[in-house]
Amino acid sequence: MRIDLNADVGESFGVYQLGDDRALIRCVTSVNIACGFHAGDPGVMRRTVRLAMEAGAAIGAHPGFPDLQGFGRRELNMSPREIEDVVLYQVAALAGVVAAEGARLRHVKPHGALYNTAAKNSEIARAVIAGIAAFDRSLAIVGPPDSQLAVAAAGAGLRSAAEAFADRAYRPDGSLVPRHMPGAVIDEPVMVLERALEIVRRREVTATDGSVRSIHADTICVHGDTPNASIIAAQLRRGLAEAGIRVAALDELP
Amino acid sequence: MRIDLNADVGESFGVYQLGDDRALIRCVTSVNIACGFHAGDPGVMRRTVRLAMEAGAAIGAHPGFPDLQGFGRRELNMSPREIEDVVLYQVAALAGVVAAEGARLRHVKPHGALYNTAAKNSEIARAVIAGIAAFDRSLAIVGPPDSQLAVAAAGAGLRSAAEAFADRAYRPDGSLVPRHMPGAVIDEPVMVLERALEIVRRREVTATDGSVRSIHADTICVHGDTPNASIIAAQLRRGLAEAGIRVAALDELP
Amino acid sequence: MRIDLNADVGESFGVYQLGDDRALIRCVTSVNIACGFHAGDPGVMRRTVRLAMEAGAAIGAHPGFPDLQGFGRRELNMSPREIEDVVLYQVAALAGVVAAEGARLRHVKPHGALYNTAAKNSEIARAVIAGIAAFDRSLAIVGPPDSQLAVAAAGAGLRSAAEAFADRAYRPDGSLVPRHMPGAVIDEPVMVLERALEIVRRREVTATDGSVRSIHADTICVHGDTPNASIIAAQLRRGLAEAGIRVAALDELP
Amino acid sequence: MRIDLNADVGESFGVYQLGDDRALIRCVTSVNIACGFHAGDPGVMRRTVRLAMEAGAAIGAHPGFPDLQGFGRRELNMSPREIEDVVLYQVAALAGVVAAEGARLRHVKPHGALYNTAAKNSEIARAVIAGIAAFDRSLAIVGPPDSQLAVAAAGAGLRSAAEAFADRAYRPDGSLVPRHMPGAVIDEPVMVLERALEIVRRREVTATDGSVRSIHADTICVHGDTPNASIIAAQLRRGLAEAGIRVAALDELP
Repeated sequence: MRIDLNADVGESFGVYQLGDDRALIRCVTSVNIACGFHAGDPGVMRRTVRLAMEAGAAIGAHPGFPDLQGFGRRELNMSPREIEDVVLYQVAALAGVVAAEGARLRHVKPHGALYNTAAKNSEIARAVIAGIAAFDRSLAIVGPPDSQLAVAAAGAGLRSAAEAFADRAYRPDGSLVPRHMPGAVIDEPVMVLERALEIVRRREVTATDGSVRSIHADTICVHGDTPNASIIAAQLRRGLAEAGIRVAALDELP
Repeated sequence: MRIDLNADVGESFGVYQLGDDRALIRCVTSVNIACGFHAGDPGVMRRTVRLAMEAGAAIGAHPGFPDLQGFGRRELNMSPREIEDVVLYQVAALAGVVAAEGARLRHVKPHGALYNTAAKNSEIARAVIAGIAAFDRSLAIVGPPDSQLAVAAAGAGLRSAAEAFADRAYRPDGSLVPRHMPGAVIDEPVMVLERALEIVRRREVTATDGSVRSIHADTICVHGDTPNASIIAAQLRRGLAEAGIRVAALDELP
Repeated sequence: MRIDLNADVGESFGVYQLGDDRALIRCVTSVNIACGFHAGDPGVMRRTVRLAMEAGAAIGAHPGFPDLQGFGRRELNMSPREIEDVVLYQVAALAGVVAAEGARLRHVKPHGALYNTAAKNSEIARAVIAGIAAFDRSLAIVGPPDSQLAVAAAGAGLRSAAEAFADRAYRPDGSLVPRHMPGAVIDEPVMVLERALEIVRRREVTATDGSVRSIHADTICVHGDTPNASIIAAQLRRGLAEAGIRVAALDELP
Repeated sequence: MRIDLNADVGESFGVYQLGDDRALIRCVTSVNIACGFHAGDPGVMRRTVRLAMEAGAAIGAHPGFPDLQGFGRRELNMSPREIEDVVLYQVAALAGVVAAEGARLRHVKPHGALYNTAAKNSEIARAVIAGIAAFDRSLAIVGPPDSQLAVAAAGAGLRSAAEAFADRAYRPDGSLVPRHMPGAVIDEPVMVLERALEIVRRREVTATDGSVRSIHADTICVHGDTPNASIIAAQLRRGLAEAGIRVAALDELP
């Protein structure tokens, strides 16, 4: 049994710090770096790429809507053509920064409202994939299992990886409880580990109503914006290892 | 005798149109495409790359200060580290768009206030070159002759090309008459051609006081923001050809 | 019989010019000035206020979504609280510029996607009105007739004015044909005048299927982004006057 | 003996938090609220205005260069006309938010690089003052003592208040040690209090070389971006009171 742990990082901007990337990056095997549209800036991107390389984490791009004030969490009604172009731009910019530091970009995971929209809307999903495929067809696509994004990736011949969340509550239909609702975020380390083990070992997740859904995950996301994010991540990684589960980046998975 | 003709293009943004790129690009042999910081956006960049490919023009990046409201014409006191990072980001983004369309980025010319600052300030010049060199050491650097930018390019082992202006007035010290002063811009096609011939054939330019300066130019810039820009450019290209001068992109020059 | 003619102006940004405000403003009795979020900048706003004062046009604010790249035409899923705050900010900024020039702000008309959303969505409509009412309860609200925006204005005790379009095609249900569809924009001066007369005299508008809808309008919008906008506007104003209709700003209407 | 204590607040943006405004505002008598250009956004501005009203602090505007990524700390070479317009816009926007909450704007203090430039450059100083005076001639101007900003305020007939820093090191010429140099920021509460007492009681400040300069201050700035800012501020206010100094907003000073 094996799993990748991923985290969204590089979300600081100018003087504004968000999360403790240095600590968090050491606990995961893959990172998704913001590309300057919903968060991040050229300097933050470069420093984050270096942190990821030092920690040996696989580097991915985390493109989002051009909405810094809303942190990419507000849906913006862009046309598929516009979506394709902003995704291409962001992935290319980050890939260049990664190359400048001597590494290689490995995957792409859309951010926030773009992630959610691409999961459900096939036209937007195809636009996201078109932007990525135009740049580099070897990139893996990270998204929710059985989503329109995964369908679009397969249709275009790109690999995709299914992501689950051990620190977010699931509704019975398999969707996440929205962030602003009570109980949406799980920040108790022991509980996060328990849920991760449920996902990896039993391929299941318990929803808010107690029902159990089957789920397939290649990677588990660790959020960095909870106050004790790096502690949760550290305990999660240790706990998975102690449970005999191999934690490794997607590329190293079979 | 030979020369490259270059134009700054892709400076539209969203609904805002600037210049008639379609007509202008057909008249030149190299284009410098804005990268989304002082002008341009991901969609404009992609459409402009396509226009350049259709016209057979060599494609370069035109990075600028992050100041859309000032169109990159206002100096911004960024640190060398910040300059390096924003140049790397912009060049990488455009290079990715170019690659997505099946072409290759060939040169970089800084824009506006960044061009002027990098021409005079050795520290900023080295920062610009560092950002470019980190991404791709085969890119040619376009800037003023004998500038700090050319010195920094040589110091880092990058090729550079000297640029002259046939449609801008020169002061006796070799600097351009600032844009807001009367007579700064020359928009009479015959006069632009005359000055271009003076530059290419005699390697000289006549300054505002009538004095003649020697100048070396590998490329002549054709501005696109004068109302009749594409007419000037068309007449310039034809006039140069009729004078027996070979007009070709930098790469094709010996 | 009387009517107000209004135009959206001040939509230039930095070096980017949009429309011929100087000519257009002279043809209308009210202007809606962009506030720097979807278009406009502090300098453009001030110059446009001066043009309006010279022409004797009533000045209104034209707040939009914070999306310069999309020109405020893409819906952005902001919360009601966020909507209220960005409307208040934009209206206050423009009102201050107007006061600095010695005039007074008279009305507010939301722009683009914010206009469309506030027309249909009661929660967003109330948020727009809350932002305006918090600043100045004497401002008139311009929006579509019988819209949620008008309902919210009435609920909060603010005056509102109904707007019709003589240069846009209507669908049988009374909504406008979306901008990207063929025939959406009517740019034939004679036809625009004919439709305006139909709206003012008969209180009717003919839809795309030939059916006739009753419509009440206090003001007719003249778009400035068609190439011959100021010609259309001039002919419209003259034609209305020749038909014996009084063209005057909202405040001067009974 | 009396003094005002002021703090720069409202510098958060979207999801990005900066400083602990709630605690800091309770310790000072005047606040300078960012206006959305170098920091702050419409929602942050409104919440900060409310916090200031709850704490009974006098509210001022803190306009800066339009450079969120550089937090307004990088000089931007704007023309005097542009400076005037962005200052007017920002002051008007904040004044409107303040009025919407039922309070009144009392003063303006330029931020960061705009503060430093306006202190030394008479043309920029006059532009800043012109933007403020056009909006409301009753606003007090906060700036360094004996600066060009104070000269310009006096020339335009506006009141001004001199500001000193108890938590920043002074050079022998009376300028502040730049922020990036060692020892620039003093974060030891006892030392900050000591320096404040020296400024208020003896009208003197000890420079980095041990020399003593005379200084006149109507207000002392408490920075909010040091980790223990609110603790420093609380001890400073208590210490001043215990020393028999009256701490009150500028308007209440004679």
